[in-house]
Amino acid sequence: MDYFNAPGRHHLFVPGPVNIPDQIIRAMNRNNEDYRSPAIPAMTKILLEDVKKIFKTTAGTPFLIPTTGTGAWESALTNTLSPGDRIVSFLIGQFSLLWIDQQQRLKFNVDVVESEWGQGAKLDVLESKIASDSAHTIKAICIVHNETATGVTNNLAKVRQILDSYRHPALLIVDGVSSICALDFRMDEWGVDVAITGSQKALSLPTGIGIVVASPKAIEASKTAKSLRVFFDWKDYLKFYQLGTYWPYTPSIQLLYGLRAALDLIFEEGLENVIARHHRLGTATRLAVEAWGLKNCTQKEEWYSDTVTAVLVPSYIDSSEVVRRAWKRYNLSLGLGLNKVAGKVFRIGHLGNLNELQLLGCLAGVEMILKDVGYPVKLGSGVAAASAYLNNTIPMIASRI
Amino acid sequence: MDYFNAPGRHHLFVPGPVNIPDQIIRAMNRNNEDYRSPAIPAMTKILLEDVKKIFKTTAGTPFLIPTTGTGAWESALTNTLSPGDRIVSFLIGQFSLLWIDQQQRLKFNVDVVESEWGQGAKLDVLESKIASDSAHTIKAICIVHNETATGVTNNLAKVRQILDSYRHPALLIVDGVSSICALDFRMDEWGVDVAITGSQKALSLPTGIGIVVASPKAIEASKTAKSLRVFFDWKDYLKFYQLGTYWPYTPSIQLLYGLRAALDLIFEEGLENVIARHHRLGTATRLAVEAWGLKNCTQKEEWYSDTVTAVLVPSYIDSSEVVRRAWKRYNLSLGLGLNKVAGKVFRIGHLGNLNELQLLGCLAGVEMILKDVGYPVKLGSGVAAASAYLNNTIPMIASRI
Amino acid sequence: MDYFNAPGRHHLFVPGPVNIPDQIIRAMNRNNEDYRSPAIPAMTKILLEDVKKIFKTTAGTPFLIPTTGTGAWESALTNTLSPGDRIVSFLIGQFSLLWIDQQQRLKFNVDVVESEWGQGAKLDVLESKIASDSAHTIKAICIVHNETATGVTNNLAKVRQILDSYRHPALLIVDGVSSICALDFRMDEWGVDVAITGSQKALSLPTGIGIVVASPKAIEASKTAKSLRVFFDWKDYLKFYQLGTYWPYTPSIQLLYGLRAALDLIFEEGLENVIARHHRLGTATRLAVEAWGLKNCTQKEEWYSDTVTAVLVPSYIDSSEVVRRAWKRYNLSLGLGLNKVAGKVFRIGHLGNLNELQLLGCLAGVEMILKDVGYPVKLGSGVAAASAYLNNTIPMIASRI
Amino acid sequence: MDYFNAPGRHHLFVPGPVNIPDQIIRAMNRNNEDYRSPAIPAMTKILLEDVKKIFKTTAGTPFLIPTTGTGAWESALTNTLSPGDRIVSFLIGQFSLLWIDQQQRLKFNVDVVESEWGQGAKLDVLESKIASDSAHTIKAICIVHNETATGVTNNLAKVRQILDSYRHPALLIVDGVSSICALDFRMDEWGVDVAITGSQKALSLPTGIGIVVASPKAIEASKTAKSLRVFFDWKDYLKFYQLGTYWPYTPSIQLLYGLRAALDLIFEEGLENVIARHHRLGTATRLAVEAWGLKNCTQKEEWYSDTVTAVLVPSYIDSSEVVRRAWKRYNLSLGLGLNKVAGKVFRIGHLGNLNELQLLGCLAGVEMILKDVGYPVKLGSGVAAASAYLNNTIPMIASRI
Repeated sequence: MDYFNAPGRHHLFVPGPVNIPDQIIRAMNRNNEDYRSPAIPAMTKILLEDVKKIFKTTAGTPFLIPTTGTGAWESALTNTLSPGDRIVSFLIGQFSLLWIDQQQRLKFNVDVVESEWGQGAKLDVLESKIASDSAHTIKAICIVHNETATGVTNNLAKVRQILDSYRHPALLIVDGVSSICALDFRMDEWGVDVAITGSQKALSLPTGIGIVVASPKAIEASKTAKSLRVFFDWKDYLKFYQLGTYWPYTPSIQLLYGLRAALDLIFEEGLENVIARHHRLGTATRLAVEAWGLKNCTQKEEWYSDTVTAVLVPSYIDSSEVVRRAWKRYNLSLGLGLNKVAGKVFRIGHLGNLNELQLLGCLAGVEMILKDVGYPVKLGSGVAAASAYLNNTIPMIASRI
Repeated sequence: MDYFNAPGRHHLFVPGPVNIPDQIIRAMNRNNEDYRSPAIPAMTKILLEDVKKIFKTTAGTPFLIPTTGTGAWESALTNTLSPGDRIVSFLIGQFSLLWIDQQQRLKFNVDVVESEWGQGAKLDVLESKIASDSAHTIKAICIVHNETATGVTNNLAKVRQILDSYRHPALLIVDGVSSICALDFRMDEWGVDVAITGSQKALSLPTGIGIVVASPKAIEASKTAKSLRVFFDWKDYLKFYQLGTYWPYTPSIQLLYGLRAALDLIFEEGLENVIARHHRLGTATRLAVEAWGLKNCTQKEEWYSDTVTAVLVPSYIDSSEVVRRAWKRYNLSLGLGLNKVAGKVFRIGHLGNLNELQLLGCLAGVEMILKDVGYPVKLGSGVAAASAYLNNTIPMIASRI
Repeated sequence: MDYFNAPGRHHLFVPGPVNIPDQIIRAMNRNNEDYRSPAIPAMTKILLEDVKKIFKTTAGTPFLIPTTGTGAWESALTNTLSPGDRIVSFLIGQFSLLWIDQQQRLKFNVDVVESEWGQGAKLDVLESKIASDSAHTIKAICIVHNETATGVTNNLAKVRQILDSYRHPALLIVDGVSSICALDFRMDEWGVDVAITGSQKALSLPTGIGIVVASPKAIEASKTAKSLRVFFDWKDYLKFYQLGTYWPYTPSIQLLYGLRAALDLIFEEGLENVIARHHRLGTATRLAVEAWGLKNCTQKEEWYSDTVTAVLVPSYIDSSEVVRRAWKRYNLSLGLGLNKVAGKVFRIGHLGNLNELQLLGCLAGVEMILKDVGYPVKLGSGVAAASAYLNNTIPMIASRI
Repeated sequence: MDYFNAPGRHHLFVPGPVNIPDQIIRAMNRNNEDYRSPAIPAMTKILLEDVKKIFKTTAGTPFLIPTTGTGAWESALTNTLSPGDRIVSFLIGQFSLLWIDQQQRLKFNVDVVESEWGQGAKLDVLESKIASDSAHTIKAICIVHNETATGVTNNLAKVRQILDSYRHPALLIVDGVSSICALDFRMDEWGVDVAITGSQKALSLPTGIGIVVASPKAIEASKTAKSLRVFFDWKDYLKFYQLGTYWPYTPSIQLLYGLRAALDLIFEEGLENVIARHHRLGTATRLAVEAWGLKNCTQKEEWYSDTVTAVLVPSYIDSSEVVRRAWKRYNLSLGLGLNKVAGKVFRIGHLGNLNELQLLGCLAGVEMILKDVGYPVKLGSGVAAASAYLNNTIPMIASRI
């Protein structure tokens, strides 16, 4: 059943789905169970509490929805908004584009603020819109924390600050799909009203759980929001939370045990250490790109992403060929350039349960591929630059000291 | 991470999620992969063709949606209907009730035809409605093939016959969640327009894929249906089918390999043999119930379900206690009675990758539990009745002759 | 890679290798590790301490040898004895026969005490030999605790009593392969000098670890024993125990983690509860055999084995056909009759991580097979007899109360 | 149960046990089975045929013994030789030393030919011994094909040539533990009489199968060899081969399925391609060592090993600290220097199911460790040298072209 075998371990460096650690694969290696037995609700209760920790919220209500990030988006929107509601949404890359497409198809009145791909959300434009909206016609701000297509991280604290300085009541709805559990994310402190992520990203699970966390204000909004929803309706979850049985419909037993293992690994490492590790991996990658003489698609340091790096290739190279060759010769999966940056960038995902030597193996591979496609890279240069930094920053492994 | 260990194998006899065979557990025991590499589309292409075989359709278009049965319901409805559309829907148990609730919340005009729980859909009422609807105001008939709460199987061929005899163009939308791959189901022959199932039922996978298959007529209807939908929109799938990349958003890699293994097992056994095995298991269970002197919740033989049996307990017994005791003393999971039949029935699920000796172990357990809760069962009686039948009907194992 | 697929769970009722619980399968689902890293010695140290608990010894020294039971036998003998040494050995079935064959090939002077197959060791003969051996020419008594071929359990306490009453210094070497962790076994109390078991028996692991535990007296004997041995030499282990690195050659990493999981399950259930469970399963099986009107190969109650039951079939039936049919029609593995009882008995193994409903499924299967081969069994009779007993004796599951 | 967790994939670069590919881990993720059912002999029959292919023999008889390499050694010796027999054995490192220790403890008359560690077997000495042994007192030549402690590969073709040129009938017994399936090995062509390997080496399985293949001449010798053996006796295997049941005692079911998967992977890649891949990995490693300015423990190119490289560190560095630091900071396992080269060398194992980017990750790690311990390495230098070579030699992945 494996049609494309190649010797050795596959090197998975797309920005999702990411590598699943063995501990999680083991935890999921199991038969189904009755989700109405006492075991699953008991487990779910603790999972819901623990999930809140990785969102840094105590006030939020989490929903573990059997869906993908796209479904989590829909759950966030339809539970809090009504058709026709004005929302401000930032278009900065392919995933924000797809979310805006969803917002429009769900009949919201989307006020799109577009940036050049490679730049962050135009928060100055947001500020002027908020400033001029004393009537509070804007019902929500929708923003991706980390745009996976371009490797751009937006400044959420700044968004909160803008809303607060104008005492604007708009909901703050955040796509944290490629950020939560990897980048610094503070739901309560930043006043995020709905935050979402997907199991197959920094949690390092298979695809299948869309995690949505709602602030009390979002829960309140859900009581009057008129968007039609059934599968994605929080109301059904809240009813079963009350009953103590937790699940309005069948969850994946395997993913629940997997989530338990994922959270245990994160708590054992320490969430701040996880974030610091992603910063190391992101920095090391950027140093390699620089050493290769290539440009980061992300135009300014303030937007650098620690979970994915989009690398611009010279115009005489087709970045898709880099990705193809990675898979065909080096057993390496890299991310394609999408839409506006198709053919122009390839992407290195460096999120999830990943360590430095894995990344260095990938970077060594990218060097050889660049050579293959005609770019005059100095072999070893990126690894050298990354290693020089990592050699100074990698901590001892806590469990082994 | 296993808080409720008990010696030996757990006996899982709820009507879903069901036992996953080892071959599938093995196939799913794997890391994530890039779903944009050539491997996943190549695999998906064949999976889609093979899925059609278990629905007995050549004309249908399958969608493997990362969701549960509830989401599959929603996909079936919102892609083919518009708010306000009149639909006829049969209320015969808890799952048809939940589907009707969804239909109403999605703003369809639901013409509910209710039966006593334990009876099948009132097809005579359907006939009179169809007969009198020369204006074709009825846009769809929604029917569960097998009501999991009461163990009632409806006659879909008869529904088709009624529609045909009046040349009525209503769409026929079928919930096959606890039937497809276990009961005789013929999408093309019976003119089913949308049929759905879930991975955790007769396919014997974990929860996570809602399988929806649409007839050409349903695909046509989807072009004009006005229900809002994004995550569940077939259009996005069809676009990616055209592109040959197949996935509008991230699928579960593990479930794809699992589905491959599940289909391989079904094809190796032979779909007709799978159905015959379910008939054996259903019959054996009913013979045991009869031997115990208990009644089947299903009131007539024509509605007997080969995938689940709801057993009525005497009024002096609380069926929930049967289920509790099964779990606490015998390491056995049985299905609770739901809603109107709560406390009155317990359910034995006998679907999926299951064999006769497993069932007999379960039946032996049920006998002891009945004794525990004060019902004067003759121990061994149900097993004897079931065995007498099975001893005459179990075939030799094809691979071992 | 599964050439003999059959629907549902395989029913494994041979007396070894036995069913592996999911918790152990999960624990073993892993990559290799460096056995010279600090992790493996740290784990081994605790494993060795914990293994002693299941032998009920504090004074013994355990060896976890990468071998089978046959190798463990050889290790027990060659480390404690010299060629030409006189040993008393009991021939009561196929496995004691094989051990005696090994003893002879290793050039010991084997004083064989033979019983009819189905009877226990002739301890009266032992007593007379011991009584007359004031010169202490007998260097060791070799006895199987539980003869797996006939389902006979010997009385070890009695052996110790005989040796003690004559103050005879012979070593007491015990094959506990199908007893330890399932039957009452007390190494220190009974003065056992070498006790062995195999991972694939009551520990419910794959084959691959031969566990040998040596008393201080046995360790002392090993210093002068002249039998040649290298792979099986305890000396190499003891040297590496001293060094704290524990392994003279590469262990199976997977089996170490599996053993950890196996011991955890046993300690969680409680060793005495494990033994009581085996007694329930053994008793239930014997009651079923009796209800079928068949005879137990074990001739007296004092020898009844709680881990395996050898069932005598009438002379007009070939017991091999029972076993063949179990596999070919019912997806059930039973044990063949071996050597002198080939064709005359089939064996039901009921040891390891197994519960009552699993056993009842097996018994229901055996009833149908008996019918198939022409024995006039009353279907349900054995299950009824077993259930009547089990219904009174199965405890609530401790973790679920 | 994982006491030493660290983020990301562990980098396992000891020369055994080696990385197990996911396909094998999956194949082994299973319950026990009855090894006396028809399934296991059917599988075994094919396995035995296929195992011969990786030894490049058609005349040989393979034995899959539940043991380690040490046990395989013992099986090779005791089945073919008698105590007192004169054998010539080459001491060139720790593993040949251990084998010689075994030979002596088994009471053979061992004529040890010692080389400096880092050099190959002294074949000129062999030649003179053979030349002067017209009486044929030498019964066997024992030689390790690849000494794992020093990374030295001996020239077996030359050994055969010496024996042939003097028409000397000594048996040629070869330890192929760290060579077979990775280095060029030709049992029939080189007239090897007994060849052994272990499952945890180039086959990339867990420890647990010692594979011994005997030539017809070795089988003939086993009929008169007087060394005592029972567990390791080929006679018992041959008897069961005749019976068609294959196993004198319980095999590991999991390892059999694992071996099946391992052979499938090797045959799919092509044995010659596997060997070529090992040559690439070995060459790349040596180029890195050279670029770091360090010396290979192997003193001449003719002895370079493609499965393990022992790297000499400057005298002011303790190579054990390199290994400790690899594990504690970089989640990397390297091999220690053993015995005479303890503290002086660390070893990089590059055998088994391994690819180039994995190796480059390891090499990048070694560079940082060298820096940590005070060696003035230029970061990136080894990776650059290795990449320059690999970039020219890595083939396209056959299944993906």
